[in-house]
Amino acid sequence: MCPQVDFDTIVHDFDARTQRGLARAISLAESGRAAPLIARVYPQVGRAMTIGLTGPPGVGKSTLSSALVRKARTLGKSVGVISVDPSSPFSHGALLGDRIRLTEHFVDADVFIRSMASRGHLGGLAGATADAVTLMDAYGLDVILIETVGVGQSEIEIAELAQTTLVALQPGSGDSVQVLKAGIMEIADIFIINKADHPMANQLRREIRSMMEILQFSGWVPEVVSTQATTGVGIDELWVAIEKHIAWLKTTGKMHEKRQEAFEHQVRQLALGNIAVRLEDRVKAESHGASDPYAAAERVLATFNVSL
Amino acid sequence: MCPQVDFDTIVHDFDARTQRGLARAISLAESGRAAPLIARVYPQVGRAMTIGLTGPPGVGKSTLSSALVRKARTLGKSVGVISVDPSSPFSHGALLGDRIRLTEHFVDADVFIRSMASRGHLGGLAGATADAVTLMDAYGLDVILIETVGVGQSEIEIAELAQTTLVALQPGSGDSVQVLKAGIMEIADIFIINKADHPMANQLRREIRSMMEILQFSGWVPEVVSTQATTGVGIDELWVAIEKHIAWLKTTGKMHEKRQEAFEHQVRQLALGNIAVRLEDRVKAESHGASDPYAAAERVLATFNVSL
Repeated sequence: MCPQVDFDTIVHDFDARTQRGLARAISLAESGRAAPLIARVYPQVGRAMTIGLTGPPGVGKSTLSSALVRKARTLGKSVGVISVDPSSPFSHGALLGDRIRLTEHFVDADVFIRSMASRGHLGGLAGATADAVTLMDAYGLDVILIETVGVGQSEIEIAELAQTTLVALQPGSGDSVQVLKAGIMEIADIFIINKADHPMANQLRREIRSMMEILQFSGWVPEVVSTQATTGVGIDELWVAIEKHIAWLKTTGKMHEKRQEAFEHQVRQLALGNIAVRLEDRVKAESHGASDPYAAAERVLATFNVSL
Repeated sequence: MCPQVDFDTIVHDFDARTQRGLARAISLAESGRAAPLIARVYPQVGRAMTIGLTGPPGVGKSTLSSALVRKARTLGKSVGVISVDPSSPFSHGALLGDRIRLTEHFVDADVFIRSMASRGHLGGLAGATADAVTLMDAYGLDVILIETVGVGQSEIEIAELAQTTLVALQPGSGDSVQVLKAGIMEIADIFIINKADHPMANQLRREIRSMMEILQFSGWVPEVVSTQATTGVGIDELWVAIEKHIAWLKTTGKMHEKRQEAFEHQVRQLALGNIAVRLEDRVKAESHGASDPYAAAERVLATFNVSL
């Protein structure tokens, strides 16, 4: 297939607002070839509501996603879902098992669901996923939900991409101090206590309150919402909390600040990712027979007109 | 304090094999000023046995560490413990609560315990922590145990630093598929089923076996060891498994390969970390008023003689 024709077809399909056009545009981003398309659509973005959802494994993120999609649809909003799978560099591919919880939305033309593996993108979430958010926004989706599976670096990065970050926790899952240590408490705009019918739900709520005192949030103080995603309990309250946070971002001017930070984050990741690729050959060459790592790094850096 | 005098004192204390000298050398590494010392001691390293220990929050990593230290001490080996705290970039500091489980070893002159925050080191684990391993090795410690608290990127990196990586899991902690997704199954040389008196221990063992079939390990097939770290049950078996893995590394030539990879990893991280710092000013300058992230990244990269 001729890449030039391919690109034009994708742009045509994208401009015609077909799901196929959006799907192929995102694939283009995944293969690192979306730059001209991003440049083209960038003036149109900034309209969508972007929500990040994260939390430890097993908390019920996919069920929460599905409930949020349902809620957005009852409000007449079109929805894009990006499931980021932080598969390890050692993994043999993304695991998409959780996606089955979103099947009820597969036939809805106003819901677009996409799984993306963060693996392989040196820019991490900020690489192809940021492009996917840009493309979904320009395409005209009203709500973009970015869900990360598992815990890790991608959880920190989600806060750079989303306007509102939801951190879901489950009662009785162990010391919440452990969750604090994983570094995902500080990115929460809203805490979700999912499986809130669990006998230890109140204890988790107290622990979250204690953690919030330790972290001393300034400005926005995270809301704590109890849900039972499987039955839909608490989803309306969650939506109210999300809208409240977005209104706060807008009235305080934080929305503009967040956008600027997200832009810089993506520029940083694009540049670093690019340099990382180019660095690789030099690393191998200079490591061979080097006396110590610093001496080798010094020689690698010289290629980029930089010294240690 | 004059830095030059300070450095000489540290080198003197380090050469005299005092714990103070080692402690101050590691602090030097944390502040990014250990390069001359690393270059000096590098020819002496490669003697220590390095063990990585990781797993999800609450699995009992600190108790396992303590039990492993005790085992090594009964064998007459001196031990260094590095506890890596993956505090988030948003965090207000490292949390050291878990360290209290190691207090029994505080008075032992042949046990050196050090907590390190991965936050702030652009080279991540491979930055200051790799230097700490080098320094402990050169200092003459027989066993170096690198423990990471929580889950995240540092878990993947631990496999680059340690000869043998232990992944601890606990029974009844939820679907082990979730752990697989977090990307930490693939780095395991040995699986530890801790709290093995739990009624669901056998189920976890079966799940690990299934995961191993999916991942299709070639060469070394991970051992699965059951422990109850609080009472010491299974620690002897765990030690046997570690020694078996290290013997395997040596006889197959993988040990040399692993060292080479670790060296390259550190060179890569040092170079990238350095460039990341220098990149920052350019990112802010070029993002201001840019039409889209790719256009801004292109201009940032020009500074380093690179194009997108």
